Formats: sequence, structure tokens, C-alpha cells
Amino acid sequence: MVSLNDYGPEVRAEVKQVREVVSSLHEQLLKWNLVVWTAGNVSQRLHTADLMVIKPSGMRYESLTPESMVVCDLNGEKVDGLAEPSSDTKSHAYIYRNMPDVYGVVHTHSTYATAWAATGQNIPCGLTMMGDEFGGPVPAGPFRLIGSEAIGEGVVETLRKYPHSPAVLMQNHGPFTIGKDAEGAVKAAAMTEEVAHTMWAARQIGDIIPISDEDIAKLNDRYQNVYGQH
Amino acid sequence: MVSLNDYGPEVRAEVKQVREVVSSLHEQLLKWNLVVWTAGNVSQRLHTADLMVIKPSGMRYESLTPESMVVCDLNGEKVDGLAEPSSDTKSHAYIYRNMPDVYGVVHTHSTYATAWAATGQNIPCGLTMMGDEFGGPVPAGPFRLIGSEAIGEGVVETLRKYPHSPAVLMQNHGPFTIGKDAEGAVKAAAMTEEVAHTMWAARQIGDIIPISDEDIAKLNDRYQNVYGQH
Amino acid sequence: MVSLNDYGPEVRAEVKQVREVVSSLHEQLLKWNLVVWTAGNVSQRLHTADLMVIKPSGMRYESLTPESMVVCDLNGEKVDGLAEPSSDTKSHAYIYRNMPDVYGVVHTHSTYATAWAATGQNIPCGLTMMGDEFGGPVPAGPFRLIGSEAIGEGVVETLRKYPHSPAVLMQNHGPFTIGKDAEGAVKAAAMTEEVAHTMWAARQIGDIIPISDEDIAKLNDRYQNVYGQH
Amino acid sequence: MVSLNDYGPEVRAEVKQVREVVSSLHEQLLKWNLVVWTAGNVSQRLHTADLMVIKPSGMRYESLTPESMVVCDLNGEKVDGLAEPSSDTKSHAYIYRNMPDVYGVVHTHSTYATAWAATGQNIPCGLTMMGDEFGGPVPAGPFRLIGSEAIGEGVVETLRKYPHSPAVLMQNHGPFTIGKDAEGAVKAAAMTEEVAHTMWAARQIGDIIPISDEDIAKLNDRYQNVYGQH
Repeated sequence: MVSLNDYGPEVRAEVKQVREVVSSLHEQLLKWNLVVWTAGNVSQRLHTADLMVIKPSGMRYESLTPESMVVCDLNGEKVDGLAEPSSDTKSHAYIYRNMPDVYGVVHTHSTYATAWAATGQNIPCGLTMMGDEFGGPVPAGPFRLIGSEAIGEGVVETLRKYPHSPAVLMQNHGPFTIGKDAEGAVKAAAMTEEVAHTMWAARQIGDIIPISDEDIAKLNDRYQNVYGQH
Repeated sequence: MVSLNDYGPEVRAEVKQVREVVSSLHEQLLKWNLVVWTAGNVSQRLHTADLMVIKPSGMRYESLTPESMVVCDLNGEKVDGLAEPSSDTKSHAYIYRNMPDVYGVVHTHSTYATAWAATGQNIPCGLTMMGDEFGGPVPAGPFRLIGSEAIGEGVVETLRKYPHSPAVLMQNHGPFTIGKDAEGAVKAAAMTEEVAHTMWAARQIGDIIPISDEDIAKLNDRYQNVYGQH
Repeated sequence: MVSLNDYGPEVRAEVKQVREVVSSLHEQLLKWNLVVWTAGNVSQRLHTADLMVIKPSGMRYESLTPESMVVCDLNGEKVDGLAEPSSDTKSHAYIYRNMPDVYGVVHTHSTYATAWAATGQNIPCGLTMMGDEFGGPVPAGPFRLIGSEAIGEGVVETLRKYPHSPAVLMQNHGPFTIGKDAEGAVKAAAMTEEVAHTMWAARQIGDIIPISDEDIAKLNDRYQNVYGQH
Repeated sequence: MVSLNDYGPEVRAEVKQVREVVSSLHEQLLKWNLVVWTAGNVSQRLHTADLMVIKPSGMRYESLTPESMVVCDLNGEKVDGLAEPSSDTKSHAYIYRNMPDVYGVVHTHSTYATAWAATGQNIPCGLTMMGDEFGGPVPAGPFRLIGSEAIGEGVVETLRKYPHSPAVLMQNHGPFTIGKDAEGAVKAAAMTEEVAHTMWAARQIGDIIPISDEDIAKLNDRYQNVYGQH
């Protein structure tokens, strides 16, 4: 079996730094109420080697430390770590192998996003915040069983149809989100739950006013290229 | 009356340790928003004697300490403790006497689980997380008055019909959950509220897509045997 | 004008102690999410004189201290304090004058209780927790403008029709609760919001199963006389 | 380009103080659950010069400090600050130029207020708290794209039709609120979300009882002139 010692100091330095990032981003999942008990997981791909860092399986958030994070290759095989990696590891790996710009993946069972997922519907785009972040609806993905890379395949095939969206609502399961790093994917997970909750609430009180495709395109372009610090 | 001094040092050591566990697990009930004011209770059965440790009755969460936890026998009679035990003690005791693999019991009035309980409906299985943790729907139990072991009887008779579920929604009352220890039962209580909330929300926006019995069985088998650290 | 110096040391000692109690109970309103910004107020009547201690008007929760609590007589006139008392002072005073067993009053605009109040409906009794704490439905009260003792009159006239309930949902306004001390009234406010939320949620998913009057009476009797530490 | 050094010591002193105020009020947005991730912004106009202090664009709440707040003129051009100002800066500036009594502006995407905004409806006035704070319904504003001062125009034209309201629900977007300082606008943002949530919940369980225009006028007059410390 390959071990971290087979990699050079640059890789080992990035592993150390990414373990800290991934561990501390799990606190953001709790902060924004995206997970319960041990559910949910964050990973980040390395830039210096074909490796990723991911949460250990079934471990409570209070127990997570940088050291407990697991290093796997992009086939989902463990390379370093005391614990077993997340059950979703092979699906994270599949996404990294097939989407070369993606360096962060997050999975949660956040309440309202998962409610939409249980009905297999896209969340329609009725908020400027959705134009900004998702460039349209948040798409529903297919039903897939956990454990293999089948979920990752479902995520990738859905995102190819919705190239502006960083999120997929896997049917009867919950959201998977991507980003250019793990922080970006955590942000997308928080935004997914927020728009899922808001659009869910809007549905209960009347007809949601649609936003035109032209306005959605303008919102998305501006947000991706102008918003924030450049 | 029997007292703790009639038990050997091994039992007294386990009592001390279980009092700490049960006391600190009450903080988890607060953390996951499962209880209000003094409602809710956690107990754990001992392995070294036919005893259990349970929350005192009607005491605010801020006041709970390991020392305030009450030791009872498996008929629900107090063996040690300054305070009176929870009103649900006889029902916890009944569950332990009749389900020998159960070493933890939790009761809450968590909002959405109790909303389902007020309508007497099972929560239908529309989430992979429900397949994982409950192996099907979360079952509704009968109406029973508090104070005797009648609630415990209702819990046991319902769980015999739903052998994969660690939770029963007692009609007009709220959820009771079981586990191989108190932590497992608290986890089941947190998961019960989460799936109750998610499935409640899904109901408001469309038809929930059912999961086939075959897929539920696969999910449950994998989660119970593969998930987590082994 | 009367001042605290006209009272003996026993009264001044109780004022000091009750100011601490009332100030710290406002933190419980925040903890259980019953108030926003400056809304809501707690008072407690003294046993040693016809006085009450109440929150100052329109002051943010972060700024509340025992010293900022205002002492008023039972006509709602200020006797001691740097700030102006709550706008609801005359209504609290009316309740104390007309309900001699009441020594605590709380008012909030908690979300779900106020939603019921906006529709002018009683919350029907579909939870054992409601049998316990309210002995039946949580009653709706009349519409009354703020500022005079008109709200207090509406509270008292409603509670006379529902003698087991510690709460009234004032129409278009929000809940008022009573207790044998301020802590009891805060508890009733927390329970009112919890049952309002739960019964609201139950309404969205089906028919709430009623609890028989006989069972409600048994629950209420047991809870008021057996529950807790005696 | 103009810089802060072109202003006198009185202005620079007010800038320093307002940066602290605006920075710390962003914590209140988090405390009352009005924002997710980097969404939302607070500004305050100065009294000593035609300047305003506003949040930097797309920066996480954990990173906000008084020093990171950006100073702009009332055309929205940056005068001082290391970071780029909020995307909404030109709209804040437009509001200050056109509403001379306004010295604080807040924008959030708070969940229930934004749900109403997605349907383009006013929140009807069914709560005494709405009479107090809004003097009637919370008005819906027009659809406007972000980035220019178009949102500010929509806010001002709506508030001219609803002169008692400190809030506008911009269609498909979210609430903008005003105040005599930033704290007042943050308070209005918190109240907007609370009444949006309460009225949303009331809608699900029955008919909301209207409050007469006469009573709304009395409530608003009393709250604006008598409530609080004078």
C-alpha cells in the first residue's frame, strides 16, 4: 500500500495544511445548521498530488481534529489516517477525477434542501441570490445507493446539464456541492439550504414570480466576475 | 430499602461513570433543540447490575449534574439519589426488562416528531437517512397516560412490529428512542427529529418519492454493519 | 411621590433579590427564542409589599442589569428606578390586583403563539404536554390596545373562563402568561411557544387526534400535583 | 481621488466611531439569524460630512473588523478603505441622497421576508407589532438588478408611498430597511423578519383578523412617540 512517506515534503506540507482547513470547515456545517450528529462531510483535493483529504466515517463533530482527517487517492483508497474515511469517499473521488476544476466537495442532509430532494424537484429560480450563486434552478439528481461511486456519477451527470450550478439535490438523499476549494463548496452548501428554505416558504403563500433567463444570466455573470474582493 | 452500599465496588464504579455519561448527554438534547425547559429524559442501564441511571423529575437543564442523576432498579424503584426520578422511570424500566439488548432510552417532545405523533401517523420512509437509521418508516405508537409503565408497554409492542426502528412516536405525546447505550438512543432522538422535520417539509411541496423495500433493506444493512469505525 | 426609602429593610431586601431574578429571567426569553430585539417583558410581585419589579421600556437585552429593573406599585406607578417601566406595566399591575395567587407575569411576541393570536383561535389540546401544563386548549383573548390596563383586563377575563391555563393569546398581539413567580410565568411562555409550534406543524400534515376531557383532567392533575421535586 | 486626509479631525473622528458601530452591528445580523455566509450589509451616514461607512464586498462575518469597513461618498465612490465596498453601495448612497432623515441602511436576505419578496406581496398588517413599527403593511417593492443605484431608486419610490414603513421587500431579492442610524435600520431588519415569519405562519392555519386603520394609527403614533426611554 502506498503511504504518505512515498510523497515529497511539498505534498506532505499541503496535506498538513488541508487537514486543518477541512477539519475547521466542518465547524461551519454546524454553525449554519447543515448537519445533525455525524451526518455530512467535506473534502478538498490537493494541488501538489492526486490526493484528497476527507472526514472520517461516523465520527461526531466534537471529536474531529486535523489529525483525524483521512487522506485518500483519487480512487478513494486510503493513503494516510487512523480512521476509516467517509462512506461517500468514492463519490467524492469520482467527482474530482471527472471535474478537473473542482477542488472541494461537500455533502449534507440539510433540512429544506433534503425536503426538495425527497420530492425529486428542482428548486425553481425565484431569487436574485439564486441567479447569483446557481445561475438558475438548483437541479435534482437521480436516486443512487450509497457506498460506491454511483452517487458521484449522478452528481457529475447532473452538473453537466446545469453548468452554472455548484449543487445537486440527490433524490431522497440530500445536496452535494462543489467549489474551487472546500470553502467554496461549504459556501454553496449554506446557500443551497438558504434558498431551499426561502423558496419552500414562498411556495406556501402564493405564486413565485419567475426571473427572466436574461436577468438570471446578468446576475450570474456579475456575481461570478465582479462580486467580492478582486 | 436497598441502597447502593448493598452493591460491590464494580457496580458503584459503573454507577459513577454512567451518571457522568447520562448527565452530559442531556446537554446534547439541548444542543440539537430536542427539549424545552425541563422536558425530556435520558437513561442508561448498567452492565454490572440490574440498575439504571435516569434524570431527576422536573429539574432545569442548567441544574443537572452527575450527582443529581437518580439510580433505580429495573422495576423503577429508587436505589440512590437525592431527587425524585423522572415521571417516565417506570416506562424506561419496562423497556429494559423486556428488551434485553437495550441499554439506553431517551424521551423528548421534539417539535416535528411530536407533530407527527399528534396526528398518529407513521413518518413514511422517503429518505436514505431513514433507510439507514430506521430501516423503514418511523412508527406511531398508541395513546398512553404518563406515570405508570403503560408508555413502556406501548413502546415495546410497537418496536416488536418494527424491529429495525430505534424510535416510536407515542400518540399525542412524543418520541421514545432506544439504543445499545444512552448515546445511541440520543443519536436516534436527534435523527428522529431531523427526519420528522424534513419529511414534514417535503409533504408541503409535493409528492414524496417512495424508496423500494429492497433499497431500504440494502441501506439499513450497510449502515448497521459498515458505516462508522470498526 | 412614594420612594423605596418609605419601605422597611425587609422590603428593600426583597426588591434587591427580585431585581436579580427578573433581570436574569430575561436571558431565558432569549435562550428559548421567545423575543426579538427589545420585545417582551417579565415582572414579579413582591411578597413583603404591594410592589412589583418589571423590565424598563424599549431597552435592549444586552443592556439589562438588576439595577435597570423598575419598581412599581400595583397601580403601575413607578416607585424606584432610573428608567421608564415597560409599556405593559399597567396591565401587569391589573393582573396582580385581580389574581391574588399570581406573582409572575410574562409577555412575549413568540412566533408561533403570535401566529395563532393573529387568527384569534384557541390552540386545540392535542398533546399530553398541553394537558399537563394548560389543562386544555391555550385560549385566545380579545383585541386590546397597548398602554392602558385594557390588556390586563382581557387577560384576566379570559383566564377566568380557562382556570387551568397559565397563558392567553391576546388577539393580533401575542401571549401573556402567569405563574406563582416570574420563573413559572417564563416556563409557561416557553411551553406556550413549544405547543403553538408543534400544533401548528401538526395541522399541516393531517387531523390532530383529540384527547378526551377525562384524560386531560388526569394529566393536568398529575402534573400539577406529582411532577417535579416535592 | 479624494482621501480621508482631505477631511478635518472631526470627520476623521466620526469615521473611526462609525466604523466601530457598523462593524459591530453586523454581529447583530448574525445573532438574529438574518444573514448567511457573506450576504447582507449595514451602512451608516456621517453627520459631519457627506460620507457613509459600509461593509466590504463578499467578506465573511468572522473577518469583519472596524478597519475593514469602507468609507464612501454619497455617490458611492470609495474614499477610504483597504477593500472594495459592498455591491449595494450605490443603492445605499441613493437612499441617503434622497431621504435626508435617513442615517442608516440595512440589507439582508432573511428567510421569511425574502419568501414574501419572492411572491411580490405586501405583508398584511395583522399584528400590533406591525402597527407599532411599520404603521401598516410591510410593502413590496419592484424588481431591480443589483450593481447600480436602481435598487435604491426602487426602495425610495416605495417608501414614499408607505411613509410609516422603515422596510421594503424588493421583489425576488429581499428586505432593505432604513433608520435614523444604523442601529435603527438593523432593528427594523430584525422586526421585518419576525413579522414576516409570524404572518407567514398565521396564513397556514386560518384567516388573519385585520386591524382597523384607526387602531393601526393609534399604535404607530404611541410607539413612535411614547415607547422606550425619553
